[in-house]
Amino acid sequence: MNLFDGGKDPNPGRVRGLSAEKGITVPLVPVDMGAMGHRSQDVTARNPLQRLPVLELDDGTILTESIAICRYFEELYPEPALFGVTALEKALVEMWQRRVELNLLMCVAHAFRHLHPAMKGWEAPQIAEWGEANKPKALEFLALLDKELASREFIAGDSCPVADLTGLIAVDFMKPARITVPDELGN
Amino acid sequence: MNLFDGGKDPNPGRVRGLSAEKGITVPLVPVDMGAMGHRSQDVTARNPLQRLPVLELDDGTILTESIAICRYFEELYPEPALFGVTALEKALVEMWQRRVELNLLMCVAHAFRHLHPAMKGWEAPQIAEWGEANKPKALEFLALLDKELASREFIAGDSCPVADLTGLIAVDFMKPARITVPDELGN
Repeated sequence: MNLFDGGKDPNPGRVRGLSAEKGITVPLVPVDMGAMGHRSQDVTARNPLQRLPVLELDDGTILTESIAICRYFEELYPEPALFGVTALEKALVEMWQRRVELNLLMCVAHAFRHLHPAMKGWEAPQIAEWGEANKPKALEFLALLDKELASREFIAGDSCPVADLTGLIAVDFMKPARITVPDELGN
Repeated sequence: MNLFDGGKDPNPGRVRGLSAEKGITVPLVPVDMGAMGHRSQDVTARNPLQRLPVLELDDGTILTESIAICRYFEELYPEPALFGVTALEKALVEMWQRRVELNLLMCVAHAFRHLHPAMKGWEAPQIAEWGEANKPKALEFLALLDKELASREFIAGDSCPVADLTGLIAVDFMKPARITVPDELGN
């Protein structure tokens, strides 16, 4: 298999992070998203949505969407389990993964894409008002998360870090999106 | 268990739709979202994000996020399998469920929430320009989906309808969001 990677972008980062947690090595095909490599013919032929990462299996089957690729690796290499083991664990991991993705990562991404000058060619039209509206949404969710993390180490379960991975990547992404993590959020 | 339901909203609809496919009956606690019931004390105590549906288990455990609740039901009642059986099926269902949700359902939801006068109290600030920007995004993805569905009955796999459920709900939701499905999309 080959993983068409996208470097610093949050979604390729989630797949590389999960692969590292599992201790697996996937052959990477680097794609330079800064040079719009995700809109190249090579990527478009594999994913008409022109997004990365893209996993190409040996029989030519294409898998896109970072979490779908992560789930595929979870099925092939179940240990360590990153999506939960019991029915309830699996559901709670999914709940937190989605909460973090929809309320934090996406808000940070909207702020970045609609406000950063370098994103002009990526997001058309850039709508500054929408970018700004996402900053307080991200901070509101971060405060809720901080309260939750006062009583446990991982966001979901005792050792199921896929939601944490999304969380870490979202918090890293706050820097280019120019959203400051408030000092009082210590957890 | 009790399912705090939200009537016509797309997300409660996904959980009811999946329960029906599985042939299971879950006791419903109706919540009137039109009267802002999702911001009531009853719901807020169970989900600080003030969103529905919310599943409360007999031991008091709370599950939120429609797809997390659906996955819990899939684990408890595996037949018929709606999220796939093999590793690859599971990954493809996840891929399509996410593609449909992120590129269609969410775009329709943004158009609805940022443009419909009734959503003023729900989405603050309403940003009309952002609502309008989502309409062509939804139609673009719908055209891609139409092309895919020319060669198969279900969006992902031969009989794994969770992505289809999201798709149907998104297309229904286009009516209140005032986005017209183009006649030429016959599939």
